[in-house]
Amino acid sequence: MFKGGYTGKVLRINLTEKRYTEEPLREDVAAKYIGGAGVGIKYMLDEVPTKCDPLGPENNLYFSLGPLCGTDAPAASRVMIVTKSPLTGAVAKSSGGGHFPAEIKFAGYDMLIVEGQAETPTWLWIKDGKVHFREANHLWGLNTFDTQQLIKDNLGDQNVRVACIGQAGENLSAFASIINERHASGRKGVGAVMGSKNLKAIAIRGENEVPVANKKAFKAALKSMFEAMKASEILYPHFSKGGTPMIIDNMFELGLFPTKNFENTGEWDPLDYLGSEVGGEKFNIAREFCYKCPVGCSQVKLAREGPFKGMASIPEFETMYSFGGMTMMHSFNEVIAADRLCDEYGMDTISCGVTIAFAMECYEKGILSIDDLDGIDLKWSNAEAMIQMVHKIAHRDGIGDILADGVKKAAERIGKGSEKYAMHVKGLELAGYDPRGAKAHGLNYATGYTGADHCLGYAFQEMFSIPVPYPVNRLDYKGKGRLTKWNQDTRSAVCDCAPMCGFILDMALADVCHKNTADLVNAIAGASYTPDDIMLCGERVNNVARIFNIRAGFTRDDDTFPERIMTEALKDGGAKGSIIPPEERDYMLDEYFEDRGWTLAGVPTAERLASLGMEEDIAKLRDFA
Amino acid sequence: MFKGGYTGKVLRINLTEKRYTEEPLREDVAAKYIGGAGVGIKYMLDEVPTKCDPLGPENNLYFSLGPLCGTDAPAASRVMIVTKSPLTGAVAKSSGGGHFPAEIKFAGYDMLIVEGQAETPTWLWIKDGKVHFREANHLWGLNTFDTQQLIKDNLGDQNVRVACIGQAGENLSAFASIINERHASGRKGVGAVMGSKNLKAIAIRGENEVPVANKKAFKAALKSMFEAMKASEILYPHFSKGGTPMIIDNMFELGLFPTKNFENTGEWDPLDYLGSEVGGEKFNIAREFCYKCPVGCSQVKLAREGPFKGMASIPEFETMYSFGGMTMMHSFNEVIAADRLCDEYGMDTISCGVTIAFAMECYEKGILSIDDLDGIDLKWSNAEAMIQMVHKIAHRDGIGDILADGVKKAAERIGKGSEKYAMHVKGLELAGYDPRGAKAHGLNYATGYTGADHCLGYAFQEMFSIPVPYPVNRLDYKGKGRLTKWNQDTRSAVCDCAPMCGFILDMALADVCHKNTADLVNAIAGASYTPDDIMLCGERVNNVARIFNIRAGFTRDDDTFPERIMTEALKDGGAKGSIIPPEERDYMLDEYFEDRGWTLAGVPTAERLASLGMEEDIAKLRDFA
Repeated sequence: MFKGGYTGKVLRINLTEKRYTEEPLREDVAAKYIGGAGVGIKYMLDEVPTKCDPLGPENNLYFSLGPLCGTDAPAASRVMIVTKSPLTGAVAKSSGGGHFPAEIKFAGYDMLIVEGQAETPTWLWIKDGKVHFREANHLWGLNTFDTQQLIKDNLGDQNVRVACIGQAGENLSAFASIINERHASGRKGVGAVMGSKNLKAIAIRGENEVPVANKKAFKAALKSMFEAMKASEILYPHFSKGGTPMIIDNMFELGLFPTKNFENTGEWDPLDYLGSEVGGEKFNIAREFCYKCPVGCSQVKLAREGPFKGMASIPEFETMYSFGGMTMMHSFNEVIAADRLCDEYGMDTISCGVTIAFAMECYEKGILSIDDLDGIDLKWSNAEAMIQMVHKIAHRDGIGDILADGVKKAAERIGKGSEKYAMHVKGLELAGYDPRGAKAHGLNYATGYTGADHCLGYAFQEMFSIPVPYPVNRLDYKGKGRLTKWNQDTRSAVCDCAPMCGFILDMALADVCHKNTADLVNAIAGASYTPDDIMLCGERVNNVARIFNIRAGFTRDDDTFPERIMTEALKDGGAKGSIIPPEERDYMLDEYFEDRGWTLAGVPTAERLASLGMEEDIAKLRDFA
Repeated sequence: MFKGGYTGKVLRINLTEKRYTEEPLREDVAAKYIGGAGVGIKYMLDEVPTKCDPLGPENNLYFSLGPLCGTDAPAASRVMIVTKSPLTGAVAKSSGGGHFPAEIKFAGYDMLIVEGQAETPTWLWIKDGKVHFREANHLWGLNTFDTQQLIKDNLGDQNVRVACIGQAGENLSAFASIINERHASGRKGVGAVMGSKNLKAIAIRGENEVPVANKKAFKAALKSMFEAMKASEILYPHFSKGGTPMIIDNMFELGLFPTKNFENTGEWDPLDYLGSEVGGEKFNIAREFCYKCPVGCSQVKLAREGPFKGMASIPEFETMYSFGGMTMMHSFNEVIAADRLCDEYGMDTISCGVTIAFAMECYEKGILSIDDLDGIDLKWSNAEAMIQMVHKIAHRDGIGDILADGVKKAAERIGKGSEKYAMHVKGLELAGYDPRGAKAHGLNYATGYTGADHCLGYAFQEMFSIPVPYPVNRLDYKGKGRLTKWNQDTRSAVCDCAPMCGFILDMALADVCHKNTADLVNAIAGASYTPDDIMLCGERVNNVARIFNIRAGFTRDDDTFPERIMTEALKDGGAKGSIIPPEERDYMLDEYFEDRGWTLAGVPTAERLASLGMEEDIAKLRDFA
């Protein structure tokens, strides 16, 4: 199909047996999936029982890099953490940046696999080809920042890189994250899987150079990439100065910024409180750079007033949505505080904020009483109540114990019609774009293998009017199946496998991303991918993940939207009146499945799998045809 | 007097003019004072107008090391920060450990002097003989931990060492501290001086080896020292496992652990809440080691329960006193939380806790109303109220604005007899040993050049029944003048000038400390001090500081105790009935002045100064004879 591929080394660590082995990365898998998420998911499909308990010892954690990571390629220090999600029961893929991903490569590994379950709290110290199993009883109960610092101090090396969980992961919150530096692998509860394994942290240090097969070709590919980045008017200076929060004004004007738990009543204008005029760059105090990234989009913001004055964090657009728009906060300061606490506790800010907004709506609608909420007056816009709830969720204290499992399970436990206010797909809380105002993006939420995930097939065409691969009307539902497939396959290959930060794709490389990825991967790995090959790699990722999910019990019925999206038209804003009724959803799904070469039940066909070179996986769907 | 001395290099930084110069350390000063505090104070006496505003541009900040610092000598990574204190108006000397002190030596300096006042917030980056004046507007408002991390990230080097202030220093709290890592140079408001200079942080990195003149002699001296340390039954394993909090049970039993703002009613037993049975090592999660210290006494403790669960810090015995005993807290958890917040805000835990205890007593006695306290019900034992007050003090919010200046000035502003409850000497809040139960230690509080400071002439003879230089009865007041002089001179030379951590002196080296210091300094600096010379260096320190204070306006009247110590006998505990009435105080002072060769007014005589080789300073007392 294509010549060559990525060769590399896997470090497999078994916590139950306290042993580790090095093994070569399977070359066939690397060739078909490039690296990153694709490699991780394919390994998981082959190794993890699809029906297993995500929090049991049979589940594995894959920390998968990719050929670009650790090289001079910009924005490529990304780790894809793959596991079976305790939040959804489906495939989890949670991406993280910083320096930790590159450090794994420097240590000589292309993937870490963590298996089993330690008997008692443990942290791992990986250096010079050795894995040290260290006792972590003392670190249990500690937040993520202190954990990182104490481990660095313990090792006497401040340049060690550490990924760890906080209290939320220890307490098995279904949306617990894994944190390195201030970077979160936030979504789908990967931190709970780490917690279930009694694994507090992984510390790693390496000094190997990542080999590049063809240095001249690599230099040329880098040059093209930097030129494309420099030419982007969005990337420089806007994005590098403003980071993701810069898009809030635009998103709100398009009707894409959800408020009041997606009720979007129009009674409250987030730009008065969170927009760039009143917040934005005024709150910025510093930029953080991931390894070898020239952009530095992570904008550290400082709370300036109120009870959380002096707290600093890096709230992204998504956090402004979940802890700002959804809960109708009255200033940035609260959003910064909630973000900081979530990072310290190791909790996903999207799921946590959306879950609190759900509880707010339940409270306002009388489904939850103040007694149910442990006396907390969880009204819309009540910042102190919101922050109290963050603490309670992290510690599974009182009502926090119910909310720590996310909106889907919380609604199941609370009942009384609360399901109507639970904004999730497949159990994953919606990210910050209203599907009603961007229907390819919406279809991506409905069909994404991890749930309502903005990191799978982000529809930049709809958000930013970028006419790649072709111009679209964001409110149309027809023709969105094809676009969603393109977005999902592109992003999977380019961002999740190569890897490359999604922001670069969206803002600078949309039209050249397949070629750019092919050029870089070919130069580094001595491969010979064409741009079309790259797309095929991405398509494989979405197929292999689908196979896992189908075997785990998911069907077409799970490819859907929260009730509100299908029954309430947007009340206000730039997409006023828009809705996705069930018949539109069905139409979009049919089109999407057809483009994917799947049955109308959403099952990949043997023919399509064969055409993708995935023959060995066909049998896995024997019982689901 | 003695041959040779310490040679070194001073980095003088002027913030007003944004320039810096390197100059040799004055050899005569180094010879007479060894290094550290002595050198810093002598420089200050010669350079800083004694009547100047501590928060004005005329005041300087001296970061003075000493010959042992940065070498293989254990427990010697100590910096003495010397300045005119905004809390007392007297000499401030505030010691700090960690790695920052050694790093200054690695950068090639024996002292940093910071002069003037930056026009706008600034941080300094010192490397390779260059000082970079960096804009710090963005860091203003940030806590000390985040400040350190952002600077390390900014410099792209996690091994940079940073000393900085938090919000308390920015807001000129008179007891603001300077923090490096988790180590505080806590007392006397050195952080406010840094804040007044608009100096947020000093980052430093060095790679020079600290030269040792006679390596063989150094090795032998180290061997003796390690042997003495190993032979100490207190140091290993007790102190290395328990740190300073281990002494609380013993101190309480001796009647030395103050409770209820020194009212010590006996109604409340701190051992029920803070003692080793209920707290102590159970809360420990990790040890932190200062550079080249084998002991690692800094015990990181984790709050296990209640609203502050998950907070971690290193509360020392002194913090257990100020935020535990003085306020009658009901568990360790609150003490840990208060300690952590003080470190983050950059505030002295002793002064802050004692000031809050003062406000509690004023509230309980009706001097302060709940309205005066911004609605906070600041009763004894109210943990949440105490923590709220910590926040308010750091931000100078409401009542916090008054309390941020310490008990002396707060009592002056509050009036209504509140002075009676202000536990300070010369404006410095008492450290955690009741003078009534340890009278040499008390006399040290009364006469110490910085105020009621446990770090000047700690009377280990009284705390631990160590018969060095001779056995004493801690409740006697006679004969304490001589002991206090011995303690002050010893500690000044050995701990503050050499330098060496005071805990090692107290717990392992009491009987050999002068010889140990002489051996180490001689080997490193090629000097030829005798043990007696070492004592003389310490005596000079206490004289030169006294000269500064006299010129700043202090008299014998300031060498006294808080009213409560002189009018209320201890109501309970191991020193029940003990008191220091004014006549005892006067007796002790007379004896002390006589031993020091000072006049009965407490002024050093020309004869004594001449005998100490301090002829050049005699004229400075011309108007105060």
